[in-house]
Amino acid sequence: MTRQPAATTFRPIGTIRTPWTEVGSCPRNGRQPDPAPVCTVHVLPEYHAGLASLDGFSHLILVYWLHQAPPPKLSFTPPFDTETRGVFATRAPFRPNPIGLSVVAFDGFPEPGVLAVRYLDCLDGTPLLDIKPYLRTTDHQADATLGWLDPHATRNRNTQG
Amino acid sequence: MTRQPAATTFRPIGTIRTPWTEVGSCPRNGRQPDPAPVCTVHVLPEYHAGLASLDGFSHLILVYWLHQAPPPKLSFTPPFDTETRGVFATRAPFRPNPIGLSVVAFDGFPEPGVLAVRYLDCLDGTPLLDIKPYLRTTDHQADATLGWLDPHATRNRNTQG
Repeated sequence: MTRQPAATTFRPIGTIRTPWTEVGSCPRNGRQPDPAPVCTVHVLPEYHAGLASLDGFSHLILVYWLHQAPPPKLSFTPPFDTETRGVFATRAPFRPNPIGLSVVAFDGFPEPGVLAVRYLDCLDGTPLLDIKPYLRTTDHQADATLGWLDPHATRNRNTQG
Repeated sequence: MTRQPAATTFRPIGTIRTPWTEVGSCPRNGRQPDPAPVCTVHVLPEYHAGLASLDGFSHLILVYWLHQAPPPKLSFTPPFDTETRGVFATRAPFRPNPIGLSVVAFDGFPEPGVLAVRYLDCLDGTPLLDIKPYLRTTDHQADATLGWLDPHATRNRNTQG
């Protein structure tokens, strides 16, 4: 456990288009805007073959590079809180590895290689790293407790599917 | 949309220890072993401050580098299937960016900087990239449809919380 693991390089497979062109305009989370705007995910042509069989999944997990995140901060006081929290107990962007993920509703392909999705909260132009099917068999945990965020849960207002 | 986005480098923040030391011995998914073995996540000392306030979350999302994944394959026929599927419609490791993620049950810290978790399916020694709290407000989608995987859903046998 003492050896420092090697670094690794990832290359974006596409670009995410959202209505939010500045960090300050991004919603607090993807379920907050009601109704949630339809965003698009533009996959680079060389990866289109990987999208086969995506039809039929109602929800996906998008993994992306938070490319405009500030430098990492390991602890901070969230704006709606009075205590210092560790960054791994939050979804803040300024993480040691600025990787973001969202569970999104998948509304199909408006054109080949372009996905229509809802419930994103990231900046327009965010580089896409991966697309995974959301599997309720392993990804769904209805009874999960929210830790320090529990008193703040009602701020997530959009409860549509 | 024509410019190729830049690559980015991520550095592991720790290492995941599991009972599975060869790819062939890994379970099909983290909910398959019953009971699910307790695995440990060893966070490097320089990141320990980021773990504050993690107590109280029953479930976490671990993001990791599938460092022993084979080269990317955009489409393939899964072993339990007869049709060719796109890799983004699967959770196979041979993705363009070999990023894995698991929703795990969090059983606390057996020692500082070490997390006890259940429901992992990755190799022993997998480099950890990020820890996020699982938020049922945004990450939980009980009614998600499973697309081509639907007839195979019963292979996920472990239904404990």
